Amino acid sequence: MDFSHDARTLALIDRVEAFVRDRAIPAEPVLDEQLAATPDEWRFRPVVGELRTAARAEGLWNLFLPGERGAGLTNLQYAPLAEATGWSPRLAPVAMNCAAPDTGNMEVLADFGTPEQQREWLDPLLAGDIRSSFCMTEPEVASSDATNIATRIRRDGDSYVISGRKWWSTGAMSPDAAIFIVMGQTDPDAARHRRQSMILVPRDAPGVTVVRGLSVFGYDDRDHGGHAEIVFDDVRVPASNLIAGEGDGFAIAQARLGPGRIHHCMRALGMAERALSLVRERANSRVAFGRTLAEQGVVREWVAESRIQVESLRLLVLKTAWLMDTVGNRQAMTEIQSIKIAVPRAVQQILDRAIQVFGAAGVSSDAPLAEMFAGARVLRLADGPDEVHLSALGKAELRTPR
Amino acid sequence: MDFSHDARTLALIDRVEAFVRDRAIPAEPVLDEQLAATPDEWRFRPVVGELRTAARAEGLWNLFLPGERGAGLTNLQYAPLAEATGWSPRLAPVAMNCAAPDTGNMEVLADFGTPEQQREWLDPLLAGDIRSSFCMTEPEVASSDATNIATRIRRDGDSYVISGRKWWSTGAMSPDAAIFIVMGQTDPDAARHRRQSMILVPRDAPGVTVVRGLSVFGYDDRDHGGHAEIVFDDVRVPASNLIAGEGDGFAIAQARLGPGRIHHCMRALGMAERALSLVRERANSRVAFGRTLAEQGVVREWVAESRIQVESLRLLVLKTAWLMDTVGNRQAMTEIQSIKIAVPRAVQQILDRAIQVFGAAGVSSDAPLAEMFAGARVLRLADGPDEVHLSALGKAELRTPR
Amino acid sequence: MDFSHDARTLALIDRVEAFVRDRAIPAEPVLDEQLAATPDEWRFRPVVGELRTAARAEGLWNLFLPGERGAGLTNLQYAPLAEATGWSPRLAPVAMNCAAPDTGNMEVLADFGTPEQQREWLDPLLAGDIRSSFCMTEPEVASSDATNIATRIRRDGDSYVISGRKWWSTGAMSPDAAIFIVMGQTDPDAARHRRQSMILVPRDAPGVTVVRGLSVFGYDDRDHGGHAEIVFDDVRVPASNLIAGEGDGFAIAQARLGPGRIHHCMRALGMAERALSLVRERANSRVAFGRTLAEQGVVREWVAESRIQVESLRLLVLKTAWLMDTVGNRQAMTEIQSIKIAVPRAVQQILDRAIQVFGAAGVSSDAPLAEMFAGARVLRLADGPDEVHLSALGKAELRTPR
Amino acid sequence: MDFSHDARTLALIDRVEAFVRDRAIPAEPVLDEQLAATPDEWRFRPVVGELRTAARAEGLWNLFLPGERGAGLTNLQYAPLAEATGWSPRLAPVAMNCAAPDTGNMEVLADFGTPEQQREWLDPLLAGDIRSSFCMTEPEVASSDATNIATRIRRDGDSYVISGRKWWSTGAMSPDAAIFIVMGQTDPDAARHRRQSMILVPRDAPGVTVVRGLSVFGYDDRDHGGHAEIVFDDVRVPASNLIAGEGDGFAIAQARLGPGRIHHCMRALGMAERALSLVRERANSRVAFGRTLAEQGVVREWVAESRIQVESLRLLVLKTAWLMDTVGNRQAMTEIQSIKIAVPRAVQQILDRAIQVFGAAGVSSDAPLAEMFAGARVLRLADGPDEVHLSALGKAELRTPR
Repeated sequence: MDFSHDARTLALIDRVEAFVRDRAIPAEPVLDEQLAATPDEWRFRPVVGELRTAARAEGLWNLFLPGERGAGLTNLQYAPLAEATGWSPRLAPVAMNCAAPDTGNMEVLADFGTPEQQREWLDPLLAGDIRSSFCMTEPEVASSDATNIATRIRRDGDSYVISGRKWWSTGAMSPDAAIFIVMGQTDPDAARHRRQSMILVPRDAPGVTVVRGLSVFGYDDRDHGGHAEIVFDDVRVPASNLIAGEGDGFAIAQARLGPGRIHHCMRALGMAERALSLVRERANSRVAFGRTLAEQGVVREWVAESRIQVESLRLLVLKTAWLMDTVGNRQAMTEIQSIKIAVPRAVQQILDRAIQVFGAAGVSSDAPLAEMFAGARVLRLADGPDEVHLSALGKAELRTPR
Repeated sequence: MDFSHDARTLALIDRVEAFVRDRAIPAEPVLDEQLAATPDEWRFRPVVGELRTAARAEGLWNLFLPGERGAGLTNLQYAPLAEATGWSPRLAPVAMNCAAPDTGNMEVLADFGTPEQQREWLDPLLAGDIRSSFCMTEPEVASSDATNIATRIRRDGDSYVISGRKWWSTGAMSPDAAIFIVMGQTDPDAARHRRQSMILVPRDAPGVTVVRGLSVFGYDDRDHGGHAEIVFDDVRVPASNLIAGEGDGFAIAQARLGPGRIHHCMRALGMAERALSLVRERANSRVAFGRTLAEQGVVREWVAESRIQVESLRLLVLKTAWLMDTVGNRQAMTEIQSIKIAVPRAVQQILDRAIQVFGAAGVSSDAPLAEMFAGARVLRLADGPDEVHLSALGKAELRTPR
Repeated sequence: MDFSHDARTLALIDRVEAFVRDRAIPAEPVLDEQLAATPDEWRFRPVVGELRTAARAEGLWNLFLPGERGAGLTNLQYAPLAEATGWSPRLAPVAMNCAAPDTGNMEVLADFGTPEQQREWLDPLLAGDIRSSFCMTEPEVASSDATNIATRIRRDGDSYVISGRKWWSTGAMSPDAAIFIVMGQTDPDAARHRRQSMILVPRDAPGVTVVRGLSVFGYDDRDHGGHAEIVFDDVRVPASNLIAGEGDGFAIAQARLGPGRIHHCMRALGMAERALSLVRERANSRVAFGRTLAEQGVVREWVAESRIQVESLRLLVLKTAWLMDTVGNRQAMTEIQSIKIAVPRAVQQILDRAIQVFGAAGVSSDAPLAEMFAGARVLRLADGPDEVHLSALGKAELRTPR
Repeated sequence: MDFSHDARTLALIDRVEAFVRDRAIPAEPVLDEQLAATPDEWRFRPVVGELRTAARAEGLWNLFLPGERGAGLTNLQYAPLAEATGWSPRLAPVAMNCAAPDTGNMEVLADFGTPEQQREWLDPLLAGDIRSSFCMTEPEVASSDATNIATRIRRDGDSYVISGRKWWSTGAMSPDAAIFIVMGQTDPDAARHRRQSMILVPRDAPGVTVVRGLSVFGYDDRDHGGHAEIVFDDVRVPASNLIAGEGDGFAIAQARLGPGRIHHCMRALGMAERALSLVRERANSRVAFGRTLAEQGVVREWVAESRIQVESLRLLVLKTAWLMDTVGNRQAMTEIQSIKIAVPRAVQQILDRAIQVFGAAGVSSDAPLAEMFAGARVLRLADGPDEVHLSALGKAELRTPR
């Protein structure tokens, strides 16, 4: 277990931290102004474009992607960079082309796409010319159980025909999201985990209707392309749009999840660190009952408990990344499940405490805390509610001595 | 300790429950449509007006107000009615003219207003012709410590001149909020709790500027008049606008809080019951891993824990109401503090669990859960963060044997 | 819902509180000395005998028992008396002949015993001449599921023959425990809840072997007769020893549990109040870092949280008692389950905090806290682990709207 | 951050695990029998002596001690060995001469003792010929605040004269505890942290009275020498018995604490792993309501939550050990405080859940869980209650950005 950062990683941490501190965070109020000025827009606002240009120029681009197409970083190397971007979750990840769901989609295309699929969709995604969405969750069924997925992908000659209703397709409200990766059933009679496939559906394919945007708490995430409900009504695409083979959908989804968990968790820890930093500033300047908040016992306890949580969970995420790098995702299953459960929950709690320190300002948009809270809260549901993972983890633990 | 409901209360419970079930809840999607259609409006939407007309016609109007001007109910009698309105928190309280901050403001005017003040402001509030706001919290100071309040109210001949900045003035974004009750310092050199006074400031007084609306977890509460930041820049009002005497501000604020706590807590328990009702429906119809959610152990545990919390805390609120009715607010201080702390926290937890049962739908506006969550979360901050009350309660408990 | 105490109850509360304060608590160190002097004894020590004589003389005797044989109190009337005895859990209940398991056994005999059974066993129990034990739990099976119980009770002519192994038979280490009520299967093929019966087995019946005493944490509860493991090896008793009819065992057990829960929970709340009282005293006299513990924020928070828990849960227990008195145990099922789960858990937490205030003294026998903690901890297991009740409560709640 | 185990450590882990599994755990019931047979004895029982002989023969002896006198292991190397001994906390540490308080005392003598002090006391301790006690805590004052310590150590010619009352002097009930390290004030007027000194007091010095043994949740820890209350009544020792210089007491105590925290925390994690192992076995064999406990959702959740806690906290302890080894105790202060707070609390919770899985057996001495629970509970108080450390950690965190 060696979590040391090598020289390249240390240099990248410095550069990403500087970018976030000097560029992304100062741009947050600018983004708010631009959002207020264009309430009906779902595309990136100008300030995002400027940040993307800057990040790309500095070489802080596609850092998430292993292999030659990306920065070639391991999970352990990328983890601290993801944490650094978590300090400005609305701006830093997109600025560096390192934001979900594009990251996961690019990974899928890099790992499972044909050369043609990669040329058509991966290259423009890597270049930041288009964006994408991942269409998995469905409103009618408990999608935590992947075998519930009802969308059908039927073969018809040289085509596949897709029918179904998806929602929480992040980013899809933006017209720039040119390509959707859709999960659906190709063979309802196959073995449980061989029923699903993934297929590429261009946004402009006939039969695709983006119905509406969904909000998270009161946030519509309009700056990121929001979260869409989409109807696929007999949408016909060439058979060559299938990713890998029929029945590979579940396996691809699993492969996609591992690195995504690391990214989400490290970004969440970055949010927690930002919150602690804001609390430090606030608590030292605010006075109640004759003492600064920093001198009040309860604030000290909260900060101490938060620090303990962040320190122990960061180590667990790093160990998970190291395991994935050295023995593979399958051998890191317990750890991947553990961080999926433990990190968002702890970060939600840390943010809740930070809000309490900030008082009413904490729930408003004057501080980034409430919006971060909503983001952390959603992670407890995303990719299956925590309880599914908790139960699976317990079951495995009860079966096998470690 | 007799918490039995008398015949009149039982009849009112039936009628309020019927109104909420048959009128308010079905109107919720209508409100959403009207909100979407008029995104820049802060006044009541038409559906609210219709509900208010209906409620008034049915005699379900001003039930919160004791004495002859209102329904004359005790706190214990009103408590279950407040709970019933909590099932539809965006519509039922306003429909029945029983929504904060108008309720507290009407109580203040009824208890401390001069006949003239009552004629000018209380009567139209009771009639539902105007609305009001309460301007206490300030952005620059920790308002949990009332002695921090910096807004100045200076006597100048036959006038008072008000200068300061307030925020979280609920309802004040609506042009219908014609009157503001403003808390400020009249004598900075007086004894700690005799420095503040309350004064009536008409919205249209020169020098009043409503700066902006604040959001709560992304919700701007636009249907209720939102939450405003307001600048008072040498605002001059007649000396007769002072409520009670100079230095009475703190005492009036305290008097206002007691019944408000009962209302908030009972409405919050109503939200919890609505959430449990929605969970029941969802859990029995949704299937994951071959069983309904209602058959999953973790959902059962959550529901059981929630039921225990609701049952025990409702009794504590009823006891508090009964104490206030029989021995007065001062003797009920421990209980008032206890419910202030315990109820919103428990309801937040119950709503968090309900969201988890609903999955992604739970954080969206397709279910009322996330918006209720935001409302419960704010209660932990409103009228001072819980920790202030917890510390005061502990201090008293350590001093005096019960 | 009327929880008011009537005049008789108020008078009894005063007298029981005085007895506990003036007699039982001062006798605690005497008991410790007598225990140290006779480490091998399982009978009541002399000080207990003196207290029993005194309590009986004062009419504070058998208060738990409804009907003419006892004090004739309702559950609601007895509840505050049980709480008062919880302040001195090792001495007050036994002093007043109100200690488990004798209480439950006397109830069973009063409600289901034949006149002969009552003459032979109930009368001496009521007189305090003998003691008893209840033999239900078995070491080999999860006894939370009553259908697991393996002890056999076979009819053989005019006799029943009992074979099996029981443990946690409280009080049975004392030679004074002259009679055991044993639960066993009479008909393994009957319907699930008609398989068990209860039967009276005299301690001195051939084939009864008291194997050993069990400890709870490090306490062997030697002053109360401990907790025994007992083997019944073809023990033959007259057929007339059966309580009620064959197959009635489960129903009798259920009937026994309701009042027992009230008693346990109210005594536990009494322990919590004693702990708070000790904390108050300690926190005001102990100084660390220049301030008394009572001035430290964390101690105030603990005390406040404890107060809130005690107040809300006491009301829930009172409501449960009131429901049992007015509509019966079956209609009070949700509440009985709720207090079974919520009260011991909260009291354990309150005691844990009190121990922390006391530091090392808190875990020792210099304070009663650690032993009370062990007692509260066991309540979370007794009569089935909390989780069984939590699941049943959740299941019922998900089925039926309240 | 490199937590990898080197080859020597890996080999030692194997050997210690084998010793614990094959020798210590099987000896536990033997110890119980020997304890029952000699209830008045405070010395090691024969089975302990046999294990000590075996461990020493295998070279599993004094592994805790860095430098040439011990095994020369770093904190990071020793940590997993301490964890392995935690599986059998009553036997494995003493068997290997690695049990508190001897370990800390030997460290003090090795680091601060004169050659003469080492010859007289350290050598026989290392050889296992004598044992020792550490006399710090006092009954009359809150010892978490070291400046409260009231025992006086007065210089008188060539002697020091010690007067005071200590308690919780672990091991001191055993006559084999030949030497006590006593903390007391040499100069009440010195700077706050220069008032105390440490001095060696032989058990047989005139004026030393071992008053009584203290129990922890009913356990008197008689097999280890218990926990004594000791009066020092004008005890005179040669001036050469002072450890280091006058005023060095606080600094020595601090130095002693760092490694002790690692040992305590890793042993506690070993206890947690033993508990999880026992739960696994129990849950797979026990049936309730038609399914094994391992198939019950709530047991799975508990096990999963426990696994997450153990994994994340073990990493935090390893990081702390690594920091102490590489940058020193002072730079590891945040982490040392963090593990002091977080580990015992988590282990207490894990043991509480394990007890619940075991039912009544869990609180008895048939399983090691309740006694382990008592041990973990005490760690939350030992060396100052957690809250002192939590507050200090929060204060530091609020002062300095990390």
